[in-house]
Amino acid sequence: MNVVEQLRLFMEPRSVALIGVPRATNTGVNTLEFMLEYGYDGRIYPVNPSADSILGHKAYPAVQEIPNPVDLAVISVPRQLVPEVVQGCVEKGIKAVVVVSQGFADADQQGKALQERVVAIAKAGGARVIGPNSMGTINAFKHFSCAFVHLDVPKQVFPVGFAAQSGLVINLGLLGSQYGDYRFLGKAFDLGNTCDVDFADVLEYFEADPQVEVIALHMEGIQDGRRFLEVARRVTRKKPVVVIKAGRTEQGGKAVASHTGAMVGQDEVYQAAFDEAGIIRVKDLEELEDIVKVFFTAPLPKGNRVGMVTLVGGIGVMAVDACADLGLEMPELSPQVKNRLGPSFPDWFPPANPVDVWPASYARPFREVNRDALEALMEDPGIDSLVAITWVPRPPRFEIFDSSEDMLAVAQKYPQKPLICFCYGPAKKVGILQIESSRQIAAYPSIERALRAVAALWRYSRYRQREPGQEPGLPVNQARGQAVVSVASRLGRPRLDAEGFDLLAAYGIESPPSRIAGGEEEAAAAARAVGFPVVLKVLSPQITHKSDAGGVRLGIGAEDELRRAYREMIETIAKKAPGAEVEGVLVQRMASGGQEVILGIKRDSQFGPVAIFGAGGLYAEVMKDVAFGICPLTRERAWEMVRSTRVYHMLKGLREAPKDLEAIVEALLRLSQLAVDLPQVKELDINPMLALEKGCVAVDVRVVIG
Amino acid sequence: MNVVEQLRLFMEPRSVALIGVPRATNTGVNTLEFMLEYGYDGRIYPVNPSADSILGHKAYPAVQEIPNPVDLAVISVPRQLVPEVVQGCVEKGIKAVVVVSQGFADADQQGKALQERVVAIAKAGGARVIGPNSMGTINAFKHFSCAFVHLDVPKQVFPVGFAAQSGLVINLGLLGSQYGDYRFLGKAFDLGNTCDVDFADVLEYFEADPQVEVIALHMEGIQDGRRFLEVARRVTRKKPVVVIKAGRTEQGGKAVASHTGAMVGQDEVYQAAFDEAGIIRVKDLEELEDIVKVFFTAPLPKGNRVGMVTLVGGIGVMAVDACADLGLEMPELSPQVKNRLGPSFPDWFPPANPVDVWPASYARPFREVNRDALEALMEDPGIDSLVAITWVPRPPRFEIFDSSEDMLAVAQKYPQKPLICFCYGPAKKVGILQIESSRQIAAYPSIERALRAVAALWRYSRYRQREPGQEPGLPVNQARGQAVVSVASRLGRPRLDAEGFDLLAAYGIESPPSRIAGGEEEAAAAARAVGFPVVLKVLSPQITHKSDAGGVRLGIGAEDELRRAYREMIETIAKKAPGAEVEGVLVQRMASGGQEVILGIKRDSQFGPVAIFGAGGLYAEVMKDVAFGICPLTRERAWEMVRSTRVYHMLKGLREAPKDLEAIVEALLRLSQLAVDLPQVKELDINPMLALEKGCVAVDVRVVIG
Repeated sequence: MNVVEQLRLFMEPRSVALIGVPRATNTGVNTLEFMLEYGYDGRIYPVNPSADSILGHKAYPAVQEIPNPVDLAVISVPRQLVPEVVQGCVEKGIKAVVVVSQGFADADQQGKALQERVVAIAKAGGARVIGPNSMGTINAFKHFSCAFVHLDVPKQVFPVGFAAQSGLVINLGLLGSQYGDYRFLGKAFDLGNTCDVDFADVLEYFEADPQVEVIALHMEGIQDGRRFLEVARRVTRKKPVVVIKAGRTEQGGKAVASHTGAMVGQDEVYQAAFDEAGIIRVKDLEELEDIVKVFFTAPLPKGNRVGMVTLVGGIGVMAVDACADLGLEMPELSPQVKNRLGPSFPDWFPPANPVDVWPASYARPFREVNRDALEALMEDPGIDSLVAITWVPRPPRFEIFDSSEDMLAVAQKYPQKPLICFCYGPAKKVGILQIESSRQIAAYPSIERALRAVAALWRYSRYRQREPGQEPGLPVNQARGQAVVSVASRLGRPRLDAEGFDLLAAYGIESPPSRIAGGEEEAAAAARAVGFPVVLKVLSPQITHKSDAGGVRLGIGAEDELRRAYREMIETIAKKAPGAEVEGVLVQRMASGGQEVILGIKRDSQFGPVAIFGAGGLYAEVMKDVAFGICPLTRERAWEMVRSTRVYHMLKGLREAPKDLEAIVEALLRLSQLAVDLPQVKELDINPMLALEKGCVAVDVRVVIG
Repeated sequence: MNVVEQLRLFMEPRSVALIGVPRATNTGVNTLEFMLEYGYDGRIYPVNPSADSILGHKAYPAVQEIPNPVDLAVISVPRQLVPEVVQGCVEKGIKAVVVVSQGFADADQQGKALQERVVAIAKAGGARVIGPNSMGTINAFKHFSCAFVHLDVPKQVFPVGFAAQSGLVINLGLLGSQYGDYRFLGKAFDLGNTCDVDFADVLEYFEADPQVEVIALHMEGIQDGRRFLEVARRVTRKKPVVVIKAGRTEQGGKAVASHTGAMVGQDEVYQAAFDEAGIIRVKDLEELEDIVKVFFTAPLPKGNRVGMVTLVGGIGVMAVDACADLGLEMPELSPQVKNRLGPSFPDWFPPANPVDVWPASYARPFREVNRDALEALMEDPGIDSLVAITWVPRPPRFEIFDSSEDMLAVAQKYPQKPLICFCYGPAKKVGILQIESSRQIAAYPSIERALRAVAALWRYSRYRQREPGQEPGLPVNQARGQAVVSVASRLGRPRLDAEGFDLLAAYGIESPPSRIAGGEEEAAAAARAVGFPVVLKVLSPQITHKSDAGGVRLGIGAEDELRRAYREMIETIAKKAPGAEVEGVLVQRMASGGQEVILGIKRDSQFGPVAIFGAGGLYAEVMKDVAFGICPLTRERAWEMVRSTRVYHMLKGLREAPKDLEAIVEALLRLSQLAVDLPQVKELDINPMLALEKGCVAVDVRVVIG
């Protein structure tokens, strides 16, 4: 069985064993009761040794006693009994198991060990496990769910596949319309602790599922980031994936550990992975609902240019603010649109974008003017998406203001452009429901949320428009890099010293000329060779923080100064780091000018090697001006990383000459290659890297190996 | 009449003249029709020369013909007729006028002139004007409104005073409960173009109004920032003021100009004014509603420590993320609370904050456990606010999960701590309405919005806890500063050159020692006097950008180098800036080390002199790491400015020794004093200011006078 076939057993089982289902009903927490109410049409086998039958279904003392084949087992017994029960399932030949019970990796060491046993038993028996700490699955197309509470089950079915790490997030997650009595749900998995079935599996399943058009994820942590990324890259080329990642903050990460026991990597790395895979990230459940909804109603826009029609100038102003925040453009109206709409407007109020139709509605009936404006913008090739700001009056009194029918007609007439709606006014709830029921227009209760949906559509559309990037083939000297690292490894050094520059050189990253010198005379000769001014850095395996030990001297302009500095340095170190063995000094030409940036690589627990680019010095950290990318980088992704920072605007040249951005990108790609080639390099930071008008040079480098 | 009495005429008029009211009714845009429907109990006089009566009310051909006194005139005639009509009102002795008509400062030059005439006529006649481009006022306590569309008028009345610059923002503004059929409205002004009555007037009126507990503003621009700030500082000590400022972005600012014709100053200066006055700023109308609601339901918390009770672990994790974003703390549970709740929880799941009551609800009925957790947190002195994450089931089936009664009981029992609620589940709409109807608990449809409300309460509470700051008395040499500026003024110079440092010295701000030199010999002597290394800067009234003209040389270490640099500089300038008259050079000791920051002052069109602090170089601009303060600064405010930047964390010393923050604050206060003392100084930037371990020095200063 492939993954799709395996997961289909969880979603469309022909028969289900409910192991540990309670005898008591009408408590609100009985799976069998809810399954019957919801209308599941397969076979149900309650397993409970203390009951003969439950709700008219014969109960069995153990799963092995069920006389017929079973597709899915749902286990809700005390945690210590779970491994034994899973063993029983395996013996019965069951290939799909949901563990509802809590108290595993989400709890304590004992729970963690129990979870590991469950996984081992299932793996040996060829079964897949969802959970523990899971509410199971919902398939609204089949009226199937194995949740143990009575969910507010969808009355309508939507082409949405959802996977979460919290049962009640499933219940509450896609709340459905802000006002409607439905939820945007088709199929949902509660993955709980994700001990086995994980987000990558679910993506593959939804990818192959013709009933699912949009995929939504509520994620606390991933086990195998690389596999997730690989699958997600493929799936997002076909279907939009929207994710909410909980545990974004340091505090939230700790909370995740005690909720699902998931490993939480660095949030910036998750962000990088989402960016690379074209996954739309949202911040909270309200946004998740807003964005999922727009993806199954609207076509993808070709660009970011928004046209808007409003009855209220004040809302128009706030809409313009929101567009600026979201990277959307509000272009001027084209001459064609101006000419078409102009005659209805007073002289002192020519039509502009947003089109404020109020002043024109004195001359012509409001609905006519409004519809005319919508159609003019739909036909304008300079507009990619349309937003209608719609007052929904309370009928029948003010039907002259009710434009909902017109909007639906316009959306049908021009199906190639998104029409998004912000509804307000006395009957907005009715209006939103009516408009949304068409499944052609997504309606929102605030202009900011409407525009946020347009921005998400555009972001995804832009991703789909781009070809996947290629990894560049770079001429690097991997053998020499490997040799540098191996020598240090053999010597048992945890970090590289002056050899760090050799490693960079092997990968074609320049640094200022430097020489190692053993004494004062050699240092003077070295300085003459590299050229003044120079810097002097002590080389000693015992000295990690050179500056603190007095082992760095900057801006040495002449030989006498150098000699003095050398002697002073040796004296100071003898006092400050008495045990340190001084192997020599590095004499390096002092680089200056340019813009300081940081380049680096590190290993992430979920995603493996990642590359880092940011503002230099402490600015990357303090200003949070840093971008991450999963290695190996494509050239396109390296450019994206650089462009996503604010220091990029300084590099482009605000008051000064622009810096060599090509060289920075090239260096980033070379570091990425290094990270892939040399797994012994655990961390590497070039700080600062000086971006010059031509080229860039690594002034200092820190390399951790292991 | 004072302002309060003047504005009362707009809110509680005994009689109203509707000038230009249409004969046609049932169009949805007839003021008279709506006033009658709403139930206004004063006298109404329609003024329309082409009607004898409208809706049973005798119509008059002109306002002067009305036989009785009139408190308020509402004018909706074509714009060119408005001045004449206002003249009529003045003759009639009317002291309060609403101009509904559009096409004034919001439109074109002709409109602007018309608006000026209206103001002049009203001023001469002692009348106050609201508008033009206004929908007038609403007083829900009196069932009065002069809006021309049928508003969705509140069925309940709330202690909220609202002022907006958009009529439909009034209608839509405080949408009221997300689900309820009411709006959080008591009294509202639509100020339109604010040609006369402005936000400061409204604040004074609401300050004195016992029916108003919370003030909400939708602002596009202010005319007199100083007066607004002065009034707001006083009002916020008594009542919370919540503001949405439209036209935040550059694009939005342009949109404002064509909407209400308001002058839009720099958004950062508005932000500074709001911060100084303790005004809570929100970003959109949804947030405005959320925050207004919490202020009239909840008491102010004493601190930022939040306790939370949830039925869903997954929501708890997202709540922790949101707290981290909002600056709220989620402390560990106290031993008392742990001991009290512990016995209900399984061993492997001890209670923590958020208290996830689900695992405990197997041992005891859910409602008992839930209420116990709420009460334990209310009684814990280590918790300042309580957030309940509440599943609202669909009764009657799952009443065992319905905790809304318990929550109301807890809120009543512990009225001194805020209890805020996030409602979800099948019957959340009913739940929110029921909970909110108590006016003791604000309920929200997302955990992030619930916590945002808590954060707003805390921000305002902290402001109220603090004593208003005092302006420091600083020993400055104002006379000397004045002399420096006057000399430059007399010479007709638009900017100070080397005298900039003299100006700083007069205000006690240090810079590196420097001398002016007339030729090579003098330069050499000056360098010896100030001490090497030095920098050399050309002094020429014609050269504004010294670097571009080759007029700056840095890092000169010795006399021969200095002489060479001097001669090269003179030659380069002769080539690059042939007409420039070189008056001499500034020889300045070169400062180094420390952390670069910017300090400055400028004049804002709305708020007058403002002080600026930010990261040095281009970082303030590119990283948007800059804080503004209205001058004169208090010492407290200067500290707040510094602390609000990210460069502050570098100044505190991340890897290096901390810098002299006291000295930076002192310099900022001295600049603020300079801005107040010397109005001729239009702009002044110290960039960079080097923050040192002891003291700080101004390396470069740019001063614009005029």
